[in-house]
Amino acid sequence: MNKRIVINLVGKAMVLEGIFMLLPMLVGVIYKENTYLSFLLPTTALLLIGIPLSMIKSKDRQFYTKEGLVTVSLVWIVMSLFGALPFVIDGVIPNYIDALFETVSGFTTTGASIMQNVEIMSKSHMFWRVFTHFIGGMGVIVFVLAVLPSDTGAMHIFRAEAPGPEATKLVSKIRYTARILYLIYVVLTIVEIILLLFSGMGFYDAVLNSFSTAGTGGFSRYNNSIAHYNSVYVEMVIAVFMFLFGINFNIFYLILIGNFSKAFRSEELRAYFIIVISAVILIALNILSTCENFWQALRYSFFQTTSIISTTGAMSTDFDAWPTFSKVILLFLMVCGGCGGSTGGGLKISRIVMLVKGVFCDVKRIFYPRAIVTPRFEGKPLIKEQENSVKAYFLIWAIILVLSTLLLSLDGFVSGQNGMISCISTTISCIGNVGPGFDLVGPTLNYSGYAPYSKILLSLVMLVGRLEIFPMLILFSPKTWKKAC
Amino acid sequence: MNKRIVINLVGKAMVLEGIFMLLPMLVGVIYKENTYLSFLLPTTALLLIGIPLSMIKSKDRQFYTKEGLVTVSLVWIVMSLFGALPFVIDGVIPNYIDALFETVSGFTTTGASIMQNVEIMSKSHMFWRVFTHFIGGMGVIVFVLAVLPSDTGAMHIFRAEAPGPEATKLVSKIRYTARILYLIYVVLTIVEIILLLFSGMGFYDAVLNSFSTAGTGGFSRYNNSIAHYNSVYVEMVIAVFMFLFGINFNIFYLILIGNFSKAFRSEELRAYFIIVISAVILIALNILSTCENFWQALRYSFFQTTSIISTTGAMSTDFDAWPTFSKVILLFLMVCGGCGGSTGGGLKISRIVMLVKGVFCDVKRIFYPRAIVTPRFEGKPLIKEQENSVKAYFLIWAIILVLSTLLLSLDGFVSGQNGMISCISTTISCIGNVGPGFDLVGPTLNYSGYAPYSKILLSLVMLVGRLEIFPMLILFSPKTWKKAC
Repeated sequence: MNKRIVINLVGKAMVLEGIFMLLPMLVGVIYKENTYLSFLLPTTALLLIGIPLSMIKSKDRQFYTKEGLVTVSLVWIVMSLFGALPFVIDGVIPNYIDALFETVSGFTTTGASIMQNVEIMSKSHMFWRVFTHFIGGMGVIVFVLAVLPSDTGAMHIFRAEAPGPEATKLVSKIRYTARILYLIYVVLTIVEIILLLFSGMGFYDAVLNSFSTAGTGGFSRYNNSIAHYNSVYVEMVIAVFMFLFGINFNIFYLILIGNFSKAFRSEELRAYFIIVISAVILIALNILSTCENFWQALRYSFFQTTSIISTTGAMSTDFDAWPTFSKVILLFLMVCGGCGGSTGGGLKISRIVMLVKGVFCDVKRIFYPRAIVTPRFEGKPLIKEQENSVKAYFLIWAIILVLSTLLLSLDGFVSGQNGMISCISTTISCIGNVGPGFDLVGPTLNYSGYAPYSKILLSLVMLVGRLEIFPMLILFSPKTWKKAC
Repeated sequence: MNKRIVINLVGKAMVLEGIFMLLPMLVGVIYKENTYLSFLLPTTALLLIGIPLSMIKSKDRQFYTKEGLVTVSLVWIVMSLFGALPFVIDGVIPNYIDALFETVSGFTTTGASIMQNVEIMSKSHMFWRVFTHFIGGMGVIVFVLAVLPSDTGAMHIFRAEAPGPEATKLVSKIRYTARILYLIYVVLTIVEIILLLFSGMGFYDAVLNSFSTAGTGGFSRYNNSIAHYNSVYVEMVIAVFMFLFGINFNIFYLILIGNFSKAFRSEELRAYFIIVISAVILIALNILSTCENFWQALRYSFFQTTSIISTTGAMSTDFDAWPTFSKVILLFLMVCGGCGGSTGGGLKISRIVMLVKGVFCDVKRIFYPRAIVTPRFEGKPLIKEQENSVKAYFLIWAIILVLSTLLLSLDGFVSGQNGMISCISTTISCIGNVGPGFDLVGPTLNYSGYAPYSKILLSLVMLVGRLEIFPMLILFSPKTWKKAC
């Protein structure tokens, strides 16, 4: 383990967070809120610790997968620990564990909240709360890479933080790739802000909703989320952008450079389209009887499908009151999540496609042992390692689901007849970075009832989900720290 | 496909079922019930069709995996179709789909019932209902093998019907292996009958409860299952036998021939012990506050743990009223099931152990790509094919779980706030051949509310679970029937 280089990068990320925190402070100044101290103190701490750490240089240029994974998980934990401070200092979330849960939920773009009434929050703190979605959406370290002058070990970091089974370099250098990705991200967000402004929404609201959509997070200024605006236009704009932010950003790059044919040949994109369209139609038909007409059913269905599959978790109606069939579909969309290389969470569409194809081939292999069967994905045969690692990923995911559900069910909060589905959906929602679940954590409710230990557990689960298991696994493996540095 | 030999074996199984049906008829005669016609008619039909079919000879001695799988699935379907007739003819279950569900549930040793009041059933029909557990427990075709003089293709049939990832021959000839297995099965059952008679239970009840335990089925004469007797002795005898029937029968054979050291070295057996003991203790502690004292908690916990992990599904108390933690443990025990080569259902302990070990090795492989990591099971390294096929099995299981839950959620019966957990636990319970689930299909309730299409779906799911997926998969694969016979 090259510890010095890991510490150096953690220091850089801390400095970055210190700078980021100046933004909500500025919002406070603009809105004449007396909140600047609650941001200034953490910023000072971040800079005072972060700058010396980022000065530590390593002569050893060794930086491999393990260093990449450890760096990414440490950065995310440290940023969450400090990111929670403004809420505690201000007193809007007096309990540190609650604040930490809210911040982890922000950075991991989960959008699960412990706030029973979010509308009491100051505009500056609300800005910070939603801004964490925007920061976490594209990845923190990817941003560090984008602004760094060198490419040392960059690929390992990039691969460790990027969502999905594979991270592709768009151009030869990782830092240029990171810049392109961030550019697409920012431009799409700006377009959404502009479109939302057309609805007559205030600038502050438009920015917050766009940040929340861009990171596929789901935090909202209002207790009843997007339903607050009660506007078809707003819902449709946000639904379309949730859909877009669930797409692999490489596709946008391909479109940008004019390679349309390659973009639309993408198997993952097609699967994403098919799943979304099927879910929208099935849910619309299923909820028809509870709606005024087909268009209203389609409106709710389209919004909720894109919201859940992109793992945003915003809501335009109380989907926990829908018929069981629709809820089961939503539960599976939570498990699926968006495309790899998007800001969405979940298992990722590409993994699901590879998994299903792998299973089909396994069946063929069992029935025809002498036949050579190889699953293909994106036009290329899947090498054995890819197929195995996708299966391993799903199995570890399943084990975490079991363990987390078991630990969560010990919480007195989930007692009663509905405890089981609350536990299961809470875990699926948190590991998939969705936000709302069903029943006790339904869209109109929140996580405030959970015991402190459950909140810490769920914070870990959210981080495990966002960083896709391995970074957190290696961080807590004793072997990582055993060898001489 | 060697169709002639498949038909021949199906015919033999039909003859066997016809003979089996004479037993409940005899019970009816003894108890002076006027029910003989409802057994005589199906027996006549089975013999009239079965005898000519079993005369069909094939010159071609080709009999491989595919033939084995097809035979087994066809036999189970045919036997269920005819086995339902006595209930319909008698009128105790007037609807054929209901009767079919009840019979499939019997043969697959699931024990899920559509009867709202089982106590109205005549003694002869009740005998047939519970006897199906005893027939299905050890396997129908294995019985056919045991009584046949030749060993042609026997291994393929044996492997297709035996539960668990591997089927081991105890002795060189399959038919002797089958005879040994049936002998152990019958002797254990007789010991249980004798022990139950000591409680003062009537002979009829003792036989029925023992059949139900031996097959790990769960059907009972009484609406409130074993709770009816309200006897610690009865509960403990049945709990111990449920535990025993969840053990791989090869272990009993090893003990029988005096090879104790090999028997107790079994990794699967140890895992089974550890899981049962942990579950018993955890549940007992969790339900302590709802019980009079620790011993009562332990009594309920021991009974319910052995009942669920062996996938019997008998109940001594309404476990659906237990705290969430205990219910989540029971749900996972339903998924696990008993040992391979037992009469229990579920994924089987050996598969779970191999799966978890495989995943640990996968993680190591990902972190240390150059290291050679091989999981070991039962003292031997797992070959790649075994590891892959266990993973494939679990993944197909997961896909079936998703599809069945989706289809089930369309049923209006599962509406309301608790619909989701009903759907999920119904599917897990049926594919694992457990019987009761949670909520709408909780231990004090039954499956009568489901729509006819759900009952057909669940019958298929039970068969898929009992025969461990592949036989049913190959039966419905068009490719199987394409080639020239």
